[in-house]
Amino acid sequence: MINKKISIKDIAKLTNTSITTVSFVLNGKGRISKEITKKILDVAAKNGYEPNRMAVGLRTGVSKVIGLVVETIGGPFFGAMAKVIEEEAEKEGYRIIYCSTNNNIQKGKDVIRMLSQQLVDGYIITPMKGLEKDIQSLVANEKPVVLIDGYFPGLDIPHVLVDNHGSAFNAVNHLLKVGYKKIGLITADLDLIQLQDRTRGYKDALKINNIKEDKKLIFKLPFDTDKDKAINSIKAFIKQQKQMDAVFFTTNYLGTMGLESIKQLELNIPQDLAMVSFDDNEIFSLYPPGITTIQQPTYEIAKSAIDLLLAQMGADRHNISKIKLQIPSKLIERGSTAEKKEVLVKN
Amino acid sequence: MINKKISIKDIAKLTNTSITTVSFVLNGKGRISKEITKKILDVAAKNGYEPNRMAVGLRTGVSKVIGLVVETIGGPFFGAMAKVIEEEAEKEGYRIIYCSTNNNIQKGKDVIRMLSQQLVDGYIITPMKGLEKDIQSLVANEKPVVLIDGYFPGLDIPHVLVDNHGSAFNAVNHLLKVGYKKIGLITADLDLIQLQDRTRGYKDALKINNIKEDKKLIFKLPFDTDKDKAINSIKAFIKQQKQMDAVFFTTNYLGTMGLESIKQLELNIPQDLAMVSFDDNEIFSLYPPGITTIQQPTYEIAKSAIDLLLAQMGADRHNISKIKLQIPSKLIERGSTAEKKEVLVKN
Repeated sequence: MINKKISIKDIAKLTNTSITTVSFVLNGKGRISKEITKKILDVAAKNGYEPNRMAVGLRTGVSKVIGLVVETIGGPFFGAMAKVIEEEAEKEGYRIIYCSTNNNIQKGKDVIRMLSQQLVDGYIITPMKGLEKDIQSLVANEKPVVLIDGYFPGLDIPHVLVDNHGSAFNAVNHLLKVGYKKIGLITADLDLIQLQDRTRGYKDALKINNIKEDKKLIFKLPFDTDKDKAINSIKAFIKQQKQMDAVFFTTNYLGTMGLESIKQLELNIPQDLAMVSFDDNEIFSLYPPGITTIQQPTYEIAKSAIDLLLAQMGADRHNISKIKLQIPSKLIERGSTAEKKEVLVKN
Repeated sequence: MINKKISIKDIAKLTNTSITTVSFVLNGKGRISKEITKKILDVAAKNGYEPNRMAVGLRTGVSKVIGLVVETIGGPFFGAMAKVIEEEAEKEGYRIIYCSTNNNIQKGKDVIRMLSQQLVDGYIITPMKGLEKDIQSLVANEKPVVLIDGYFPGLDIPHVLVDNHGSAFNAVNHLLKVGYKKIGLITADLDLIQLQDRTRGYKDALKINNIKEDKKLIFKLPFDTDKDKAINSIKAFIKQQKQMDAVFFTTNYLGTMGLESIKQLELNIPQDLAMVSFDDNEIFSLYPPGITTIQQPTYEIAKSAIDLLLAQMGADRHNISKIKLQIPSKLIERGSTAEKKEVLVKN
C-alpha cells in the first residue's frame, strides 16, 4: 500500500470542511467544534498526514536536525567520529545530515549557507581559513556551533580537537630518544591550523633536543595532487635526502602514500627509514613491522563536540563560547620506530 | 564585519517603505515604482539579503539539493563514490547532503522522512530490506530516486550496482583454476541482496567446476559484532576448518578483519591459506604478498547514478524507471592467489 502524501486540501475534501478549518485544527488554532476537530484528526491520522516540516520549521524554527560539515565523506577518522556523534545526537532526538567541503573555501561557504537555509538547529564544522565570517555570522544569529579538528586562532568559538602540537612533539621526541637523528617531515601544503600546529610540534621537539632544523628535510605536498603523482614526489624527496633516517607524516593519507613510496623504493622499515604517522588505521597496524602512529581520541573528540553542541541548545548556552578543548593523543609504538642500530659502514 | 542576517522588516525600515512593498519587490510581484524598486534592491544587495530558501522552496518546490543516503559515513567505497557524485552534481548546480542508515531499518525510515521534509529534489539511496514502502512512496510522489549498491528484486526503481553475482563467480572460479579446492566463504549475516548475490556467485562457481558445496565451509558473521570479537570468531572458524585451502570474503571490512585473523594465527598467505576479498583498498595492495580483490567500478557506478538521477529531473523522466545497470568488476590478481603448489606431505 503506497500512499501519496495527503494534503490539507485532501483532508478538507474528505471531511467536507474548508481548508481554513483543517488548517486551524491541525495547527491547534481557532475555535472549531469538537466533533469536526475529531473528524479531521481521524482522517489525517488514518491517511498518514504529516505536517510539512518546512512549514512547521518556518513557524517554530526547530528541526531537530544537526548539520555536520566535514572535509571529505569517507575516511576512517571522520567515519569513527560520525558514528559517535550520531549515537549521542539520537539519544536527544536529533538526526545528522552531512556535507563536505573538500577543503574548498567556496564550497564551504555554499554548504554553510545551504544548511542555514535548510532547517538545521546546530552545526559541527571542521573549519578552514576563509570561513571565519560565515561561521561568525551563524554565531551572531544565535545558531549553536562547535568546531572540530581545527579552530580559528583568536576567535571565541567553542572547539574540540586533539592536541596537535603536543602529539607531534611526542612522536618526534620518541624518534630522537630511540636514536634517529635526521628526521624528515612530510606534510600537506594547506593553510590549516592543525597542520601548522603539528609542524610546530616537530620543530619544538628538534629544538629541545638541540638538533638544528634542516629545511631540506621538510617536504610539503601540494594539495589535490593525484595519488600516483604524490607517491612519485614523495619517492623523489626520500631518494634525494639520503641522510634522512626517519620521517614523520602529519596525516593519515600522507602516511599511507609514504608507505607505498617506501615499498616501491624497496627500503626496509626501520633499518633504512623509520617512520611515524598521524592517525592510526588498519594499514598501520597490519603492515609489517607495524607502523608507529599518533592515535587520535576520536571517541572523546566526538563525544565532547556533540555534548558542547547540545549544551548550547539548552539553558547553559552563554557559558559555552569560550570552551576550547585540546584532548591528548596516544602514541602507539610499533616496529617502524624500533631502537636504531648503528651501522658502522653504510653505503 | 559580521552581519546579522537582514530581514525584509529591516529593509523596509532602511528604505522607509512598508514590509509589503519590500516583499513585492523582492518577489517580483505587484507594481512598485522603478525608483523605490531600485532603492530596495540596492539596500538588499548591500546588506547581503538572502531570500529564505525554505520559503522559496515552499513556493517553488525546488531546492537544488540532492539527498544521498549511505550505509555508513566513512569507508573508502562510499567515499570514492561521494566524490564523483558531488563533482557531477555540482556541474548542474546541485549540492549533496548525506545521511547514514547504519543498516538500521527504523533509522533508514527516519532519514528518508527527514530528507523528504527538508528541501530535497532527488535521492540516491543504498537500499535495504524494510525500506521498500518508504522508497516507493517517494516514487509515487514523483520524487526522482536512484538506488546504488543494492536493489529491490521485482520493483521498478532505477538502480546501479556492480555485477555482484558475476564478480563473486569470477573470483571463486579463479581460485579453482589456480589449484585451490576447498574454498571457504566468509560473509555477513545481513539480509542484503548484494550479499545474497555474491553468495550465489560462490556457489555457482563451485557447481560449474563440479565441486560439491560444503556447508561447513560457509561462515556468516553476525551483524554489528565488535571488531575484536569478530576477529576471534573468524580465527576460530579458520582453525576449525583445517582442510580449507582458500577463502573468499564478501566485503571489504570482512577481508580486512580476515587479514588480521590470518596474521594472528601466523598462517602464510597463500601457502597455508589463499584469499580473495570483495572491494579493493590500500591494505590489500600494500600487505605482502598482495591480496587479490574484486575492484568495484566506483567511478562508473557513481557517474551512472547521478546521471540517472539528473535525467529524471529533466524531460526524460518517464523512460528511466526501468533502467537497471549492473556494471562488471575487475579481478585484481595478487600474490594471495598465486598458483597452488602441491605439498606431498602436509602436517
